[in-house]
Amino acid sequence: MQTLSDEQSLSHYGRDWTRFWPARPSKVVFPETVDEVVELVRQARADGQALVPSGGRTGLSGGAVAAHGEVVVSMERMRKLIEVDEFEPSICVQAGMTVGAVQTAAAEHGLFYPVDWAAAASSQVGGSIATNAGGIRVLRYGMTREWVRGLKVVTGTGELLELNRGLIKNNTGMDLRQLMIGSEGTLGIIVEATLGLLPTPPEASVLLLGFSGLDALMPALAELRQGLSLSAFEFFDRRCIDHVEAALGRGFPLDADACPYYAVVEFEDPGQQNQEAALARFEALMEAGHVLDGTLSQSGAQAEELWAWREAISESIAPRTPYKNDLSVRISRVPAFLEALDALVRERYPDFEVLWFGHIGDGNLHMNVLRPEDWSTEDFHAAGRELSPAVFELVQRYEGSVSAEHGVGLLKRDDLHWSRSETEIELMRAIKRQFDPDGILNPGKVLPG
Amino acid sequence: MQTLSDEQSLSHYGRDWTRFWPARPSKVVFPETVDEVVELVRQARADGQALVPSGGRTGLSGGAVAAHGEVVVSMERMRKLIEVDEFEPSICVQAGMTVGAVQTAAAEHGLFYPVDWAAAASSQVGGSIATNAGGIRVLRYGMTREWVRGLKVVTGTGELLELNRGLIKNNTGMDLRQLMIGSEGTLGIIVEATLGLLPTPPEASVLLLGFSGLDALMPALAELRQGLSLSAFEFFDRRCIDHVEAALGRGFPLDADACPYYAVVEFEDPGQQNQEAALARFEALMEAGHVLDGTLSQSGAQAEELWAWREAISESIAPRTPYKNDLSVRISRVPAFLEALDALVRERYPDFEVLWFGHIGDGNLHMNVLRPEDWSTEDFHAAGRELSPAVFELVQRYEGSVSAEHGVGLLKRDDLHWSRSETEIELMRAIKRQFDPDGILNPGKVLPG
Ligand SMILES: Cc1cc2nc3c(=O)[nH]c(=O)nc-3n(C[C@H](O)[C@H](O)[C@H](O)COP(=O)(O)OP(=O)(O)OC[C@H]3O[C@@H](n4cnc5c(N)ncnc54)[C@H](O)[C@@H]3O)c2cc1C
Ligand SMILES: Cc1cc2nc3c(=O)[nH]c(=O)nc-3n(C[C@H](O)[C@H](O)[C@H](O)COP(=O)(O)OP(=O)(O)OC[C@H]3O[C@@H](n4cnc5c(N)ncnc54)[C@H](O)[C@@H]3O)c2cc1C
Repeated sequence: MQTLSDEQSLSHYGRDWTRFWPARPSKVVFPETVDEVVELVRQARADGQALVPSGGRTGLSGGAVAAHGEVVVSMERMRKLIEVDEFEPSICVQAGMTVGAVQTAAAEHGLFYPVDWAAAASSQVGGSIATNAGGIRVLRYGMTREWVRGLKVVTGTGELLELNRGLIKNNTGMDLRQLMIGSEGTLGIIVEATLGLLPTPPEASVLLLGFSGLDALMPALAELRQGLSLSAFEFFDRRCIDHVEAALGRGFPLDADACPYYAVVEFEDPGQQNQEAALARFEALMEAGHVLDGTLSQSGAQAEELWAWREAISESIAPRTPYKNDLSVRISRVPAFLEALDALVRERYPDFEVLWFGHIGDGNLHMNVLRPEDWSTEDFHAAGRELSPAVFELVQRYEGSVSAEHGVGLLKRDDLHWSRSETEIELMRAIKRQFDPDGILNPGKVLPG
Repeated sequence: MQTLSDEQSLSHYGRDWTRFWPARPSKVVFPETVDEVVELVRQARADGQALVPSGGRTGLSGGAVAAHGEVVVSMERMRKLIEVDEFEPSICVQAGMTVGAVQTAAAEHGLFYPVDWAAAASSQVGGSIATNAGGIRVLRYGMTREWVRGLKVVTGTGELLELNRGLIKNNTGMDLRQLMIGSEGTLGIIVEATLGLLPTPPEASVLLLGFSGLDALMPALAELRQGLSLSAFEFFDRRCIDHVEAALGRGFPLDADACPYYAVVEFEDPGQQNQEAALARFEALMEAGHVLDGTLSQSGAQAEELWAWREAISESIAPRTPYKNDLSVRISRVPAFLEALDALVRERYPDFEVLWFGHIGDGNLHMNVLRPEDWSTEDFHAAGRELSPAVFELVQRYEGSVSAEHGVGLLKRDDLHWSRSETEIELMRAIKRQFDPDGILNPGKVLPG
């Protein structure tokens, strides 16, 4: 089993997409078989050595960060395709295969893996399951959880669990597979997964719409859902546009000053047979005053162009090291919650630029506060930390989640209590002890100390 | 809080749909509020009194049976509708509301709760979640698990957990809600649930098809899936027909002797616009020799008539107290598994009448062996017990489940090991102890002693 411990590898493999924590693993190991993972965990347990399971390191909450001399277990070399079963249909892969490679392998069989997001090409199947990744089509297809039909997992005692073996129905006691999904490397190392697939969906078209205000978003979603089969409803506020224009080097196709909010709406449109229905809904929304401007894609290429206005936001603002929050509330509470939150930030930090975007059709908002050019990263993060409790208190008041998609990791560990009760946290701790009695799997992540 | 302890009530509330165990609860209590449930559990814990959470008692594995002086906690009086949120859309109800009442309440708002099965009208929301009920449209809509957006649960320590609060996305550590789903009353008493709803689906039509043999079923499913949006693919063998004819008092619409297997295939057919596509598939299947006979519903009433040939089977054979097994394997393994199993039973008990039916599109087979008229129930059940290990060994060899939908309860408790490893069972025990340290919730169910 290859091991690396040069400086560059340590810092490369010791961190994820976040950049807040130092990368200080003691080494990085690259198992290639299930047996090697089992052996590795048993040895680590004997040595009391902490392990950090590591996927594509696109995580946004520090789950794969090794800041305290842990051994990073990179799953990079376990990326074999085991089987595509066209009949089920499903795909069985080693956990280190990327989600992008799964999408491609499925497509080669005329099939489709529906979970997708901007980092899917680098993120791994194991990492996506360990974080229960969501993304842009949750509205239609749900989170990663819905697609996991079977898991092989090595627990913290070095035991191999084979959970659910690809079955659709299996009511034989607790579904331990569900505990593994979203466990962020704290209960076991996922070594193999069977994922459900779908037939290739019909072609889709995209509406880019400009809204008169927050209050218009939810009635518009309801109206559009009536006549169209929606696969995404993704919104962003006007302030995002400048950043994406700069990143893409092209102009926004609508008048960017005309509306405070925009949305990319994707709907099924085989042979463009639903274009008329879409235009009818669009006109109804214009008449109702909810929508002020819009455009409808006429081809796959155009649909992709319109998607870019939503998909490129995250990367376009990355250089401004934003203070991010990935929040959710029940869908019907989105407008009131967003308004209250926006007012809160503006009141506290009137100089900050706050961007809003996200998977609003699922009640999921990404709040991004940009560092003013003349602030140091340190001061800015201090301000973020100062702001957080007020943000989370609001989340709690609206009965929402302090981490909709991105998980807890190191970033939200001490904020878990805003969304989960003390009893729940105690139960999670107790369950963790059953899977990992010596606490060698990703210690310090998810659960507060 | 009302309490009953007369003989009739004890025997009525002390058992479920199974009839193998004596009903011997010490009393039956009927809480009406969450607080009463909390109080009840705390008192039971102080007294070391075992409780049996009890729903509609349509369970098929003895989960709600009270055979050892337990107190039955009937949820019958907690059946309030709390809220229908048309926007999400979702419904929030007390756990004692029946699934049928949920379906009706949804329909009154132009909405649809998609989990459905022959006992849905009497089964309760709490019971359906505690058993993760499946049913006839899993192929399209999944099991109950997919629809549970939030749960209020009272644990064995009398603590109230509010799990997930109706959110679509909430990646904040372990999803304890998932543990409650399918826990059969062993981890907590479900007192309230928020269930996702859908817009009313388009009208459906039904094909009743006769197949040339086992091998024809799977290619037919694949073929039909291509051009049609299937919501059910339910099969039964020729032997079921006599029983249903007797129960319904009408004749089978096809030649009942012509084919060994039949299937009810439901597909979306708004305004009957897919009738031609269905007929084209039907003809293709006839040409390929997979299908020998068939009929297509021309109206909603006809569709219901065709459904009856599948839906009425269970009740029509109930008087013969069948030895039942609810098994599943991966979809693609169904024909080989069914053949092997059928051969096994015929070899051991050539005189027994074996009926096959089930949700074959999900890999789920109901095996029903009928008691010969001249056998006593006791002898027959002894034969069933004698047969079971061979059946389960086959299930294990095909990597299947010894309980696809019906749960474990008392019936399959000692057979759990055929589908779950010793390590998994140990983990389940350990988790149970965290939620119910004194073992007062449904002791003796699900987990072997
Ligand atoms: C530009 C961008 C956009 C994004 N958009 C979205 C989005 O829309 N929706 C969304 O949900 N996420 C999004 N993400 C976050 C991220 O891509 C996901 O969380 C992803 O699932 C992480 O996968 P990974 O393989 O990179 O995991 P890593 O970052 O390597 O690890 C994540 C966690 O999983 C654990 N882990 C990794 N592999 C295993 C394994 N085999 N067994 C056990 N534990 C393991 C790690 O210990 C860690 O706790 C985005 C990220 C970026 C950079
Ligand atoms: C004719 C017939 C057809 C059927 N078809 C199907 C089918 O197709 N698919 C399928 O999945 N099932 C089927 N079933 C089985 C049964 O209807 C389901 O298992 C149903 O979900 C049980 O619900 P119930 O309310 O009757 O539960 P009960 O039988 O009362 O209890 C079942 C289990 O849940 C526990 N429980 C009940 N309420 C609660 C609560 N509030 N909190 C915690 N635990 C609780 C009990 O302790 C017990 O362990 C069928 C049954 C019949 C009689």
